[in-house]
Amino acid sequence: MPPELTESCASADEARECGATAVAHPNIALIKYWGKRDEELLIPYVDSLSMTLDVFPTTTTVRLTPTAEGDSVTLDGSPAVDGERERVVAFLNLVRTMAGRAEPAVVNTRNSVPTGAGLASSASGFAALALAGASAYGLDLDPTALSRLARRGSASASRSIFGGFAICHAGRGTGAEADLSAYAEPVAVADFAPALVIAVVNAGPKAVSSRAAMRRTVDTSPLYQAWAASSAVDLADMRVALRRGDLDAVGEIAERNALGMHATMLAARPPVRYFAPETMAVLDTVARLRADGFSAYATMDAGPNVKVLCHLGDTARIAAEIRRAVPDGTAVIAGPGAGARLRPRAEP
Amino acid sequence: MPPELTESCASADEARECGATAVAHPNIALIKYWGKRDEELLIPYVDSLSMTLDVFPTTTTVRLTPTAEGDSVTLDGSPAVDGERERVVAFLNLVRTMAGRAEPAVVNTRNSVPTGAGLASSASGFAALALAGASAYGLDLDPTALSRLARRGSASASRSIFGGFAICHAGRGTGAEADLSAYAEPVAVADFAPALVIAVVNAGPKAVSSRAAMRRTVDTSPLYQAWAASSAVDLADMRVALRRGDLDAVGEIAERNALGMHATMLAARPPVRYFAPETMAVLDTVARLRADGFSAYATMDAGPNVKVLCHLGDTARIAAEIRRAVPDGTAVIAGPGAGARLRPRAEP
Repeated sequence: MPPELTESCASADEARECGATAVAHPNIALIKYWGKRDEELLIPYVDSLSMTLDVFPTTTTVRLTPTAEGDSVTLDGSPAVDGERERVVAFLNLVRTMAGRAEPAVVNTRNSVPTGAGLASSASGFAALALAGASAYGLDLDPTALSRLARRGSASASRSIFGGFAICHAGRGTGAEADLSAYAEPVAVADFAPALVIAVVNAGPKAVSSRAAMRRTVDTSPLYQAWAASSAVDLADMRVALRRGDLDAVGEIAERNALGMHATMLAARPPVRYFAPETMAVLDTVARLRADGFSAYATMDAGPNVKVLCHLGDTARIAAEIRRAVPDGTAVIAGPGAGARLRPRAEP
Repeated sequence: MPPELTESCASADEARECGATAVAHPNIALIKYWGKRDEELLIPYVDSLSMTLDVFPTTTTVRLTPTAEGDSVTLDGSPAVDGERERVVAFLNLVRTMAGRAEPAVVNTRNSVPTGAGLASSASGFAALALAGASAYGLDLDPTALSRLARRGSASASRSIFGGFAICHAGRGTGAEADLSAYAEPVAVADFAPALVIAVVNAGPKAVSSRAAMRRTVDTSPLYQAWAASSAVDLADMRVALRRGDLDAVGEIAERNALGMHATMLAARPPVRYFAPETMAVLDTVARLRADGFSAYATMDAGPNVKVLCHLGDTARIAAEIRRAVPDGTAVIAGPGAGARLRPRAEP
C-alpha cells in the first residue's frame, strides 16, 4: 500500500513551497531500552516505557529545496558534522523512499537539551524530524506509523511521538515483520502527578556513546540476557503501578530497572561505567531523602546524570538537596509533557 | 577417624598450661567469593582465588582455662560484643567437638586492619583463630583440614591459611560431602612481583554487612546466576594468567570479576551499592593511569575501598595519584604475604 499524500505537499511542483516545523520533547525511560537485535532497523531487544518531559524541546524545520544539489543540515545554527549529518540524510532518504519523492531538503534543528549528556536529545530530535519530514514530504502517517518511522532514527524517539507515558514494543520476528511490530503507543495511567528532578552533574560529552555501549553490552556482558529477562517482569509490574498511580511502586521498579541496566554495562568487556563521583553523591542524597520519608527514586541513562522521580509537590526541596550535594551541577524540574506536534505555518 | 592430639596439649590435665598464638594476614580475592549455598557450613556457590597480603596481620591467642565457667573473648583489648562473641564461641565449640575436649578458653585477638571496611578482617581473624584454637586444643590438622576449619568461621579465612595465592574450592554435594570438598589450597604462579595499592576511602562501618549483602544478592538479584557462571570462566582464565605471570591479564580478569560481582549487588532488591563518590574517583584515577601506560587494575570487596593491582615498582607513583584523587583517604601498599603461622611459645 503506497503511503497517502497530504493535500499540502501532494506533488513535486507544490513542494517548492513545502515545509513543516515540528516540536518534540525528550523522554526518560522508566523501563529502559538497552540493546538492539537489529542494528539497521533499530529493533530493540526489550520493551521499554517512558515519560515524555515538558522541558528541553527540540524544534526541527524541514523545507524542500527541489533545485538544490543535496540536503543541507543545520544543528543549533551550525552545519551538522559528519556522523550527525549522515544520520539525518539517511533518515530523509527513508522518508523520501516512503513518499516516492526525491527532492533534497534543508533541515534546521534547535535543541534545548545539552547534547550528549545522557538526556536523550536523539529522542526529541528524531521525533521532531520524523513529524516535520513526513509532513514536508506529504506522508500522512497515523501515530503508530509515525512512531515506527521515528524509531528508524533512534529507537527511543518512537516514544517521544506521544505525550505522557508511552511503551515501545520490541516487536517480533525479523525484517519487515520486526519493523512493523516495533512501535510505540501510549500507556494507561492513573490520574497522578509524578515529576522528575534532573540532576545534570556533567553536561560534557560521554566517554562512550550510548550506541557503542549498548552494542558492547549485548556482545560481551555475561549479565545482559538475565537483565533482559528481568526487565520484562519489571515492565509488567510497572504497568500495574502506573494504572494504580502508585508513585512509590513506579519509582522502586524504575530504580531497580535502571540499576540493573547499569549493572549489565559494568560487566561488559571492557566495562562501561557511566557512574561519576557526582552520580554517587546524588544517589546518596536520594537514599537520604527516602530515609527522611520522601518518595524519591533514581533512574539513570547512558551518562552520569541522575533523574529523580518524585511527587510534584516535593520537587523544590529535592532540587535544593541535589544542588547542595553537587554544587557544580544543576537541577532541572520536569513534569509529563506533550507529544510531538506540528507548528502552525507562518503565513507568508 | 578421631583427630590426633599434639604432644603439648594431649590431655585436659596438661591443658592447664596450654595455649597457642597464631598470626594470619588478610587476603584480597582476585576471583571473588560471593554467595553461600550452605549458610551453616559456609559453603560458597563459587570457587574463589586470592592473594594473601603482607600487611594488617591479626594476632590471636587461645589459652585454655579449665576452671573458668565459660569462654572469655577479647577483641583489640575490649570484651567482644554480642555477634562477635557468639561467632568466636561457636567456632571454639566446633574445635572442641573435633578435639573431644570441653575446657573453656580465653581468646585474645588483635587486628591491625580497620574493622568493617571491606578489608576482610574476618579472613585473617578466623585463619588465626583456627590455627591457634586447633593448636591449643591439641588438634593436629594438615593445611587442607585447617583451611576447612577456618572456612567454618568465614569462607574467605580458608584462603588466609596459605601464603601467596590460594584457591578456595566451593566443593560439591551437600552436608558432609560439601564440608569435606570445600577447602583452600595454594595455586601455582610464575615468579612475578605483583603488588596492591589499597585505597582506604572510608574506614567506617558498612551500611550493609557483607553477610547480609551476599544473602540478599543470592536471594533476589536476577543477575546472580549469570555472574556465578561467568566467574567460573574468569577463574580458569586467571589460573592461566597467574601461571604465565602476566600481570595485565591477571588485572583485567580481576577487574571484570569484581565489577561483575558489584553488578549483581546493584541488581539486588533492594539494591546494595558499596560505591561511594570516592570509589568512583579512585576508579577514574585507575582508568587515567592505565591510559598513561601503567598496569593498574581495580578490585573491590563489600565496601567502598578500592584495591589497585600493579607492578611492585609502580606502587609509590600509584599511591601518590590515589592520595591526590581522595585527599581524605589513605593509600596502603601491600605485597604477597605469608600464610597463617604459630608464634613460638615464650618460655616461662
